Amino acid sequence: VRLYNYFRSSAAYRVRIALNLKGIAYDNTFVHLTRNGGEQFAPEYKTLNPQGLVPALDDDGEIITQSLAMLEYLDEKYPNVPLLPISVPTPQGYAARARVRALALAVCCDIHPLNNLRVLKAITKDLGADDAQKSAWIAKWISSGFAALETQLARSPHTGAYCHGDSPTIADCCLVPQVFSARRFNVDLSEYPTITRIDAQCNTVPAFIAAQPKNQPDFEA
Amino acid sequence: VRLYNYFRSSAAYRVRIALNLKGIAYDNTFVHLTRNGGEQFAPEYKTLNPQGLVPALDDDGEIITQSLAMLEYLDEKYPNVPLLPISVPTPQGYAARARVRALALAVCCDIHPLNNLRVLKAITKDLGADDAQKSAWIAKWISSGFAALETQLARSPHTGAYCHGDSPTIADCCLVPQVFSARRFNVDLSEYPTITRIDAQCNTVPAFIAAQPKNQPDFEA
Repeated sequence: VRLYNYFRSSAAYRVRIALNLKGIAYDNTFVHLTRNGGEQFAPEYKTLNPQGLVPALDDDGEIITQSLAMLEYLDEKYPNVPLLPISVPTPQGYAARARVRALALAVCCDIHPLNNLRVLKAITKDLGADDAQKSAWIAKWISSGFAALETQLARSPHTGAYCHGDSPTIADCCLVPQVFSARRFNVDLSEYPTITRIDAQCNTVPAFIAAQPKNQPDFEA
Repeated sequence: VRLYNYFRSSAAYRVRIALNLKGIAYDNTFVHLTRNGGEQFAPEYKTLNPQGLVPALDDDGEIITQSLAMLEYLDEKYPNVPLLPISVPTPQGYAARARVRALALAVCCDIHPLNNLRVLKAITKDLGADDAQKSAWIAKWISSGFAALETQLARSPHTGAYCHGDSPTIADCCLVPQVFSARRFNVDLSEYPTITRIDAQCNTVPAFIAAQPKNQPDFEA
């Protein structure tokens, strides 16, 4: 397994957590998102992933794009240490899997896409946002997204030590990188005690710790 | 099954297609996204879905949020007329499911979140975008997203009459509403012949036709 990886990419961070949780050894090809105008735009990389986005996963020649598709793929192909509630054919069983996916998607569709590098570039270059407007933009989407997630997590009997029960799922794989990003951008997290409690729990687990940006070979301060 | 629905919502449109493809009868509760300051922000709706986003799905009391989680849920609970390649335990089998999910996610994570109502409001109100900048913003994300999707679809032997093979999948459920939205915003689609060919094919199928915004009870011209 080879991960096209960048230490600071939230989406790559999700996949690193999942690979580590499942104990899957992997090689890295680092794709530097700002050097040389962005190595993700190099023709060789765009042949691999026409979206020009990181990460990409090469599993013995099968190229997988989109971090959530990778998490589902890894969970299906390497079912040891499941990252979704086990499929049981009851209404509650189906709903449990949907709950975990919905928590992950709330991060991946409604928070992260609005704050990633290409969008921050666009609001600056195309719409003339200054630094204060950029910070407000970032805080707006993280805060509104986290407020909803906090409610969903705090009120549900399914929330445990982790987003769902007492073992990590794809929801935690997505939440932790988003919390990291929120801290990096100095977003106030004081109103999200359940989110920060789960994040703290995750970051006691070696698989999560090893996936942190600062523990990557390509880390830059 | 009850769908909290709005005729023009891309995310609701995805779910309507899936429900129709599977032949699942459903009731509607319409949530008007602009009337009364946005009915999705009403306290009763936010109790149901704290994100204040449409759609939400109520399946006999199980409340599902996030359209892609709904598609996966429907495919697991109602496996008739599958919307993902059948799971076969081979590298190609796992990769096929990942391919379909990645195509769907490329729409749901990297195109649609940048052009939905709340973001268009934010670039106008918070960043002062004028109408020309708003149109350019919409076209930028749809065009870059579709360019990558076109490459991925055109070069793959797995692409058939539909995004994957010769029957609809969740990728088609997501692509068709995005093409509809692109046309609504007058985005030039001439460089995406595979996308428009698949869209045209889908729109010959009764399940897709019945899901179109203009065929909804709450449609407004």
